[in-house]
Amino acid sequence: MTEVPFSAIAAAIRGTLENQGFTKLIGAEVVAVEPRVVVMAVDRRPEVLQQAGLFHGGVIAYLIDNSATAAAATVIDRASRTVITAEYKINLVAPSTGDRLTCRAEVVKPGRLLTVVEAKVTCRTDSEEKLVAVALATIANLDVKTP
Amino acid sequence: MTEVPFSAIAAAIRGTLENQGFTKLIGAEVVAVEPRVVVMAVDRRPEVLQQAGLFHGGVIAYLIDNSATAAAATVIDRASRTVITAEYKINLVAPSTGDRLTCRAEVVKPGRLLTVVEAKVTCRTDSEEKLVAVALATIANLDVKTP
Amino acid sequence: MTEVPFSAIAAAIRGTLENQGFTKLIGAEVVAVEPRVVVMAVDRRPEVLQQAGLFHGGVIAYLIDNSATAAAATVIDRASRTVITAEYKINLVAPSTGDRLTCRAEVVKPGRLLTVVEAKVTCRTDSEEKLVAVALATIANLDVKTP
Amino acid sequence: MTEVPFSAIAAAIRGTLENQGFTKLIGAEVVAVEPRVVVMAVDRRPEVLQQAGLFHGGVIAYLIDNSATAAAATVIDRASRTVITAEYKINLVAPSTGDRLTCRAEVVKPGRLLTVVEAKVTCRTDSEEKLVAVALATIANLDVKTP
Repeated sequence: MTEVPFSAIAAAIRGTLENQGFTKLIGAEVVAVEPRVVVMAVDRRPEVLQQAGLFHGGVIAYLIDNSATAAAATVIDRASRTVITAEYKINLVAPSTGDRLTCRAEVVKPGRLLTVVEAKVTCRTDSEEKLVAVALATIANLDVKTP
Repeated sequence: MTEVPFSAIAAAIRGTLENQGFTKLIGAEVVAVEPRVVVMAVDRRPEVLQQAGLFHGGVIAYLIDNSATAAAATVIDRASRTVITAEYKINLVAPSTGDRLTCRAEVVKPGRLLTVVEAKVTCRTDSEEKLVAVALATIANLDVKTP
Repeated sequence: MTEVPFSAIAAAIRGTLENQGFTKLIGAEVVAVEPRVVVMAVDRRPEVLQQAGLFHGGVIAYLIDNSATAAAATVIDRASRTVITAEYKINLVAPSTGDRLTCRAEVVKPGRLLTVVEAKVTCRTDSEEKLVAVALATIANLDVKTP
Repeated sequence: MTEVPFSAIAAAIRGTLENQGFTKLIGAEVVAVEPRVVVMAVDRRPEVLQQAGLFHGGVIAYLIDNSATAAAATVIDRASRTVITAEYKINLVAPSTGDRLTCRAEVVKPGRLLTVVEAKVTCRTDSEEKLVAVALATIANLDVKTP
């Protein structure tokens, strides 16, 4: 395992997220990539809402899927392994009435095969961060096929 | 409870889904609204993919969130009640390499307070429908406040 | 891969389940072990109930955990691999008022790394099987270490 | 709403848990009942293990089910409402090789209809508490029918 500085790993993860077609469509922002933690956010605009003017649940799920998988990617040896999202569970706990949605995903337990990640999503409402969703995700680590 | 024909209920549910800002952004299609069942689909285009050219997990989650909640909406008395997505769990079981993603959500157990819905997502690949995700969702029924 | 008849695999899985200390404590029964499917059951007695005289949720979870993992064990090459329960999600959809609880777990998608299993739990009430829980489980396949 | 001291509420919750047939069968202990938090534990003995000598996943699920539901019971008005377990999701993150299993459930978000609870299960191994499972649960609040 070559020793790669974390800043290079973080830049690679950030680049992958930012270049996804769906990330560009939603207009999501990668706020932070740290060891075990990734934070992403989306600002309010009509295109990311549902019928009642709340952020759509699918936008919340998108943030959780991406942030959780990226958080798991911070704890693997990227030379030999890669990550895929195996499953997640989301609880929507309050309406997203605010102007900015932020998801913070943090590795609870890294593993050889599977990494478990918790995520919390808050919505900035009247300059307070209100909890709107919690999630628990399982990310699988795959061996990178080398020639 | 006024007897409303199901066709009117289906049209109302379809209209709600189609007018969501996020549904328009994604370009999703409401394929069917039947008693206990809702089917939605999204065609492949670069804006709904992730870095490896697969449909983004967030698009799959969006379909599940919307279809499951709408399926639950087909089994309530809409005059007095409304639905909100409480939680769901998604397993991504195969890569979405095909050209069209279809989600079929079906009510497993309607309830006074909570309705439980199963969803299966397939991806049309080489003219076959390949299973790419399965989900289990809980939808809450709320009383509509009347004056 | 040596060709082992399924009857031998089924007998091995059944033996593993029946010899668990917790299975004996609960008094659970292995009803069927078939390719992709395992069925287990527990009869009503005061020791497996909660305060209101229903089967305890923990008994339902026990049945799901065991049946789902065993169902996944029917689809691996047992010479080189073994299974562990990675995660599961349970919805309790109706009270377990009857006299016998039966869980049927079936593989939805076998995989090299992970197998996804669905389970349905019914309770025999007035000689009918009433659905009381549904579940979705992820079982991991591990390489057996050989000397 | 009559003002009941929390000590009386805690005693009632503790009594309910301790008198469950299944709690007695497993030999579980109610360690703490505090506002928003319930802690339960089970000591190692052959009857609560699986084939490899680890605590059975069903014992972990039992602890999560009971602790999470009881934690939700600490935040309702018990004069008019009661709780039922709607659903939960468990990730088993490490083998339970130790001598005592402890589950701490804490309310993340109390709600009028639904309360969301997080739980962490640790196993005491070589006098350290090692994380073995994490869970996310949804508990429903029901109106108590009064004559």
